[in-house]
Amino acid sequence: MSRTVIRGGLVITAADEVHADVLIEAGRVVALAAHDSEFTAGWSASAGRVIDAAGKYVIPGGVDAHTHMELPFGGTFASDTFETGSRAAAWGGTTTIIDFAVQSVGHSLREGLDTWHAKADAQCAIDYGFHMILADVNEDSLKEMDVLVEEGVTSFKLFMAYPGVFYSDDGKILRAMQRGAANGGLIMMHAENGIAIDVLVEQALAAGRTDPRYHGEVRHALLEAEATHRAIKLAQVAGSPLYVVHVSAEEALAELATARDKGLNVFGETCPQYLFLSTDNLAEPDFEGSKYVCSTPLRPKEHQAALWRGLRTNDLQVVSTDHCPFCFSGQKELGRGDFSKIPNGLPGVENRMDLLHQAVVDGHISRRRWIEIAAATPARMFGLYPRKGTIAPGADADIVIYDPHAEQVISAETHHMNVDYSAYEGKRVTGQVETVLSRGEPVIDGKAFVGRAGHGQYTPRGTCQYLI
Amino acid sequence: MSRTVIRGGLVITAADEVHADVLIEAGRVVALAAHDSEFTAGWSASAGRVIDAAGKYVIPGGVDAHTHMELPFGGTFASDTFETGSRAAAWGGTTTIIDFAVQSVGHSLREGLDTWHAKADAQCAIDYGFHMILADVNEDSLKEMDVLVEEGVTSFKLFMAYPGVFYSDDGKILRAMQRGAANGGLIMMHAENGIAIDVLVEQALAAGRTDPRYHGEVRHALLEAEATHRAIKLAQVAGSPLYVVHVSAEEALAELATARDKGLNVFGETCPQYLFLSTDNLAEPDFEGSKYVCSTPLRPKEHQAALWRGLRTNDLQVVSTDHCPFCFSGQKELGRGDFSKIPNGLPGVENRMDLLHQAVVDGHISRRRWIEIAAATPARMFGLYPRKGTIAPGADADIVIYDPHAEQVISAETHHMNVDYSAYEGKRVTGQVETVLSRGEPVIDGKAFVGRAGHGQYTPRGTCQYLI
Amino acid sequence: MSRTVIRGGLVITAADEVHADVLIEAGRVVALAAHDSEFTAGWSASAGRVIDAAGKYVIPGGVDAHTHMELPFGGTFASDTFETGSRAAAWGGTTTIIDFAVQSVGHSLREGLDTWHAKADAQCAIDYGFHMILADVNEDSLKEMDVLVEEGVTSFKLFMAYPGVFYSDDGKILRAMQRGAANGGLIMMHAENGIAIDVLVEQALAAGRTDPRYHGEVRHALLEAEATHRAIKLAQVAGSPLYVVHVSAEEALAELATARDKGLNVFGETCPQYLFLSTDNLAEPDFEGSKYVCSTPLRPKEHQAALWRGLRTNDLQVVSTDHCPFCFSGQKELGRGDFSKIPNGLPGVENRMDLLHQAVVDGHISRRRWIEIAAATPARMFGLYPRKGTIAPGADADIVIYDPHAEQVISAETHHMNVDYSAYEGKRVTGQVETVLSRGEPVIDGKAFVGRAGHGQYTPRGTCQYLI
Amino acid sequence: MSRTVIRGGLVITAADEVHADVLIEAGRVVALAAHDSEFTAGWSASAGRVIDAAGKYVIPGGVDAHTHMELPFGGTFASDTFETGSRAAAWGGTTTIIDFAVQSVGHSLREGLDTWHAKADAQCAIDYGFHMILADVNEDSLKEMDVLVEEGVTSFKLFMAYPGVFYSDDGKILRAMQRGAANGGLIMMHAENGIAIDVLVEQALAAGRTDPRYHGEVRHALLEAEATHRAIKLAQVAGSPLYVVHVSAEEALAELATARDKGLNVFGETCPQYLFLSTDNLAEPDFEGSKYVCSTPLRPKEHQAALWRGLRTNDLQVVSTDHCPFCFSGQKELGRGDFSKIPNGLPGVENRMDLLHQAVVDGHISRRRWIEIAAATPARMFGLYPRKGTIAPGADADIVIYDPHAEQVISAETHHMNVDYSAYEGKRVTGQVETVLSRGEPVIDGKAFVGRAGHGQYTPRGTCQYLI
Repeated sequence: MSRTVIRGGLVITAADEVHADVLIEAGRVVALAAHDSEFTAGWSASAGRVIDAAGKYVIPGGVDAHTHMELPFGGTFASDTFETGSRAAAWGGTTTIIDFAVQSVGHSLREGLDTWHAKADAQCAIDYGFHMILADVNEDSLKEMDVLVEEGVTSFKLFMAYPGVFYSDDGKILRAMQRGAANGGLIMMHAENGIAIDVLVEQALAAGRTDPRYHGEVRHALLEAEATHRAIKLAQVAGSPLYVVHVSAEEALAELATARDKGLNVFGETCPQYLFLSTDNLAEPDFEGSKYVCSTPLRPKEHQAALWRGLRTNDLQVVSTDHCPFCFSGQKELGRGDFSKIPNGLPGVENRMDLLHQAVVDGHISRRRWIEIAAATPARMFGLYPRKGTIAPGADADIVIYDPHAEQVISAETHHMNVDYSAYEGKRVTGQVETVLSRGEPVIDGKAFVGRAGHGQYTPRGTCQYLI
Repeated sequence: MSRTVIRGGLVITAADEVHADVLIEAGRVVALAAHDSEFTAGWSASAGRVIDAAGKYVIPGGVDAHTHMELPFGGTFASDTFETGSRAAAWGGTTTIIDFAVQSVGHSLREGLDTWHAKADAQCAIDYGFHMILADVNEDSLKEMDVLVEEGVTSFKLFMAYPGVFYSDDGKILRAMQRGAANGGLIMMHAENGIAIDVLVEQALAAGRTDPRYHGEVRHALLEAEATHRAIKLAQVAGSPLYVVHVSAEEALAELATARDKGLNVFGETCPQYLFLSTDNLAEPDFEGSKYVCSTPLRPKEHQAALWRGLRTNDLQVVSTDHCPFCFSGQKELGRGDFSKIPNGLPGVENRMDLLHQAVVDGHISRRRWIEIAAATPARMFGLYPRKGTIAPGADADIVIYDPHAEQVISAETHHMNVDYSAYEGKRVTGQVETVLSRGEPVIDGKAFVGRAGHGQYTPRGTCQYLI
Repeated sequence: MSRTVIRGGLVITAADEVHADVLIEAGRVVALAAHDSEFTAGWSASAGRVIDAAGKYVIPGGVDAHTHMELPFGGTFASDTFETGSRAAAWGGTTTIIDFAVQSVGHSLREGLDTWHAKADAQCAIDYGFHMILADVNEDSLKEMDVLVEEGVTSFKLFMAYPGVFYSDDGKILRAMQRGAANGGLIMMHAENGIAIDVLVEQALAAGRTDPRYHGEVRHALLEAEATHRAIKLAQVAGSPLYVVHVSAEEALAELATARDKGLNVFGETCPQYLFLSTDNLAEPDFEGSKYVCSTPLRPKEHQAALWRGLRTNDLQVVSTDHCPFCFSGQKELGRGDFSKIPNGLPGVENRMDLLHQAVVDGHISRRRWIEIAAATPARMFGLYPRKGTIAPGADADIVIYDPHAEQVISAETHHMNVDYSAYEGKRVTGQVETVLSRGEPVIDGKAFVGRAGHGQYTPRGTCQYLI
Repeated sequence: MSRTVIRGGLVITAADEVHADVLIEAGRVVALAAHDSEFTAGWSASAGRVIDAAGKYVIPGGVDAHTHMELPFGGTFASDTFETGSRAAAWGGTTTIIDFAVQSVGHSLREGLDTWHAKADAQCAIDYGFHMILADVNEDSLKEMDVLVEEGVTSFKLFMAYPGVFYSDDGKILRAMQRGAANGGLIMMHAENGIAIDVLVEQALAAGRTDPRYHGEVRHALLEAEATHRAIKLAQVAGSPLYVVHVSAEEALAELATARDKGLNVFGETCPQYLFLSTDNLAEPDFEGSKYVCSTPLRPKEHQAALWRGLRTNDLQVVSTDHCPFCFSGQKELGRGDFSKIPNGLPGVENRMDLLHQAVVDGHISRRRWIEIAAATPARMFGLYPRKGTIAPGADADIVIYDPHAEQVISAETHHMNVDYSAYEGKRVTGQVETVLSRGEPVIDGKAFVGRAGHGQYTPRGTCQYLI
């Protein structure tokens, strides 16, 4: 049996920081041992591969719980396929993605899930799972939820935004939450009052306010907070947990904090774009602002401090990317003269681990918290623990050797995502991925991609392991 | 010119308690003078009528800002006409009602208003005004709002409940609020999440939970709180004030209190039924619970203390009745075997002033606060001040001589509302109306109705005078 | 009997704004009558004095519940005597002051009260009452509280600041509150954590931070908030109401708001200096900052908006002056080189009504709210209602004719307070006192002082009338 | 070198639950390996001792951060010596205690620390560290703090209670906090307003309320909340973290939650007695209530739910015992006829791990949370991580084999603490310690004590590792 040993690094998990060697067999972590203990020497002798991690971090591969490869949106498709997107994820130190299969209105969940399986099958460089977007809540789709939970699709996203597309009314939401409370499926919510926002969009366009920055204005922070509060109340009535995706507004975070103080199982995710970008970017001239159009929208800079605080206080538990790239050229440009036609989404799956390490460097969070919000908690939240998200005996050997001292500049020139711009173009960060193992197999090594499409396996998930 | 003098009473307004004589001419209060001053003697000499109020309270007639005479609901009509209902109001010490004209979907505001004018014209014993129920928000009705505000219909009620009937979605609500912010019209909100409630109704009925008490259970307190919060956020986005009708849940009150702490122009009304009745009544056997079916529903007793506190802290500003009577026999009975078919509403227009005086006796509120919540503030809130709601030079002589020591027992046997039961049957209260003047004319005198249908005049209103 | 009639003005009270004529006899308001009613003509005929108030406001004289005439402090005395100070008050439209008699440590309340009576007796131009500063809480002084309440000294100030001078520890505070709960005496609190502040003072001086602006820094806003919270909790334990004087910090106001939301009888006062001045003034060069040294200290400008909001939401109920003037020359100068030696206090008794009218002009508060916070509520709070604080039959004829359109510039050159600077030097305000009556007698008339020392009477007070 | 292997158990840490074998060498954990991996077989072969943990939990030994062995209090001494107390701790699955050395007023920290070293030296069965009680804050003792932090005494307890004994006023507290902010020492606070409580004690005794239950009444929950709030504000001013010991009142917990929502480094500890006992116990007849006299006092049952919630939401981070036993006979009896003379304290060091496991069984907390609050977080909080509080390569082999299915009844008959009663007498719990290793050495094995006094070592600590 092929053995790999990682020697001499600092193993960082959500809980511990230990100088330990890691022994890998058959794709799993088999043992950790104190680096200075005599017997790990024997490990290396018997190992097919020995990785020297001296001076490096040995961390669980990132778990990005929110990606949209090839998502159809506004008449176009997100520009990363599962192949290009999962490869870029690996470059960035992420070893598991959970993407969103989409139910179309009038169609079954099964059809949507099959479609997404077809897109991903044999394409991925790293392991992946699926959430299911519930676009059409009805008796049939509610029953299908039970089946999907059994099969390992244990989380269901609903939209309070996008009327006519993904939108569910409060009655549908309540029904889905009740079902989730019964079958263990976790409801994920895009919390923006889309009905009200559409009025503001219409009014803005009618008034000639068509530039990208108006995207941020019409999607009012209070309307994110409102929907967040509403989702929480509906979840309370249904007796279900709730996971709010891409929280961007301080006011929405405050609603989560209030609910959590009561001991409710209410969770919040934010994304690097809300932590590092702002409405200043949306206001960039020459339609450059369109690059930063996503929903929930970027907020004024002042919100960033609240989000960092929320990550520290655990009122936010997860940082995902909501990776949903559209090229500036040909895609974002669809919205010239009408911000509402700009495809919503940013690229980011490759940048998350680095940006959050930068947050460690900047003092926003600790090293262990970095791993917790980027790997351990998303794994627990979505039923992947302890296979994913930690380095412990028995866990999948999804491991990243991370150089905390390397410096790099983020740029579309050098990134591996299939998109013609970077949202963080020119940003200098400290820290870089050196080696990535997926179930013990090298994917990135020596700054080269050594993996392959199809190595990544579909990973059925258990139910949420983060409830209190 | 005919003069009336009220001598020797304790004049109580929202602000003052003074031993003063009141001189009335031509339907107006002309002067107040210290009772012990020599020159009021002269007043009596020249007066056509002298009312001895020694040992009594002299108070502004009540202003009931929420009545529904002859309201069509659930295939039947509220059992009080403007004639019977306004007469009963007078018996209870209320001298102004503001009723709700109803727009029907597909019809104009004007048509609705005309219909209600036709119902009320020449029927009322006391003065009356109209709010307008906006059931169909569209470009035309939004424009009509401006006209109605000009004409003195300065408040517009929207429903977050009753989908398919009065319900407006959040986009319509936002538009109406924006319009109100511009034209001065005050948005009144029935704040319950009707979309979610209808799911719970359907589930309850499907499960055989058909008794009246399930009306209370499905209309969950959290769904009142949710809608209240949502209405507040929409009002913030629109930059408009907000008046939430019939607040019954402690959790909803908490949302108002939070908003008011921020200095927002958010107001709340509660009703005697929420202060004195509870889900215990809804659970009365033999379908008796149907007598207490109204929306928002009665809540568990524990909520009452919060509502009283809200009235003391001014987080609630107004007590109206939401008077909307349906006879038990033939009307409430429509819902036997299906609580959702019970017409929603309680009689109460005659009981409000007495019940609130009982609250003074019980120590819940002060005498001046009694007048404030029952007369002065509703008058200000709805643009009737200082003609209504106070006793001051220039004000309409809508005055009640109230005996604070009389004892009475509330009963359908003795009440004057056109409904076959009392929600407070058998309740003993201290305090009783003795004499009621409407613009100086006696309506109730010596426990007899001496008024007439048609004395009461339609009263156009100004815009809200209660903004901070 | 001498009659005075005020004709044609707009009578503004906390509750009403009416065009009414006011009839005064024997120092009391005897009647109000609609200006357009025929019979008020007769009043003028019989009146010894007719004041034409056309185009003017007719308002209750201000009640300033917080002044310190001739207060000994830091080795000097406040520069206004009762004669000069009460005269200046009248110039500014205030017709009642409540000053603080001071108990010295080791002495009885009676001795302190007698001393203050001696200072004020036959000196005042307007009516006055006394609060009592409890500097030495012990069995004897607790018993004396009962007697003083009976005599009309119904409020007792305690200090959480000034250790070694006025300071009471929490045990003494608790005892005094318990006593007040029993005898009806209202506890007034200077809420700053003086023990902690003294440490910061010592550290600042040791570090050479001796300028006046450090006075603001060491008296940390959080230490005002802390003491406010502590006073509230002690009052809860004692079951007593609480009145917090001179609230200046937003954080302290938040503590009051939280307590009031619970329905507690907790009240807050602020002062014009906190509404119009800021730490910018404390930082004025050349020791000019010393003019603005008072405790609680001025806060950064950002706090002002919170205070205005608190006045609108009624989380603050009263605006008093904390008038405690010390001349720059010879008094403030005592603290050159050591801010802790600067006598604490500002002049302001003459400016309050004008500054608050300016707030009406600026849109911070309504006209009625102006009267409420400056006259009606302080009168109720301290047991003077309805003699003071309103214009109603039976009330003392303490009335100001106020010209809302006059313009004036505040200046030490023109003010009447006995102090060599104005805290508002050069500030232009709209509105000015024209005529002032105290119990019907002119004190200010035609921009001249026509009153006399000794007209003002000591006014025993009842217990707090503002409890909910 | 002697090796120990623990085979087949479920290793539970704050972060992970893995079926792993644990290899121990030289008192440290050297490796963890998946139980089903072939090579752990080799470990057993080479091991001097193999512990079969099949069906058992393998957990880090408990860290009890709050004990008082031999504490002098009220004229007597806590009845457990370091020998008896540390042995009892081991029986209960605790392998580290942090006890409180006491500075006496007028003496140096060093003297106090030396005294406690003398008490503990060569006595302990398990490792131990010291906090320092700062009873006399002055220039000298502040300077000594720096030295002690360097030496590994990195936390300092202050008292807002017990005037005249341990009490520090707010100025002293502020100074100590400032010093801690500079030198890394963590301030621990006994947060009760002792000055106010002493007034209530005196009043209760004067009124003849002398029974133990009055101990609970006079130590009012609001006075715990008040002091907690005050300590937080002082810490904010000082810029220091804060650890509040033995939180018992819901209102105090609310203050912590509010502070933590702001991202402050404010921490809270509670104790099993507050989670499992209540004022019902204090009210037990025949002076039995005295057994439950401790400070902060037990609270009404309703507070328990809040404390459990706080443990789930991480508003409380640590459960310690505040172990401070006094025999009923001869010690608690000192307070017959005067509750204030009852020595304050409960035995509990032996019961904590079991009671908290019962909480797992009862569904209050998860298994991992059990370890977190009882071992991992106290170790981090007080600078012992990762030597203590986890099972990871490099950690001290302080390990407990815990049988989750065993049943036991807590009783003074069977416990090992040197005290004549149990606070939990007769309580049936599920779960029991089977084997305890301290640095690899067996202390408890096969229900026998196999350790020795003096095995336990004094353990200097680093500074707080739990800051955010």
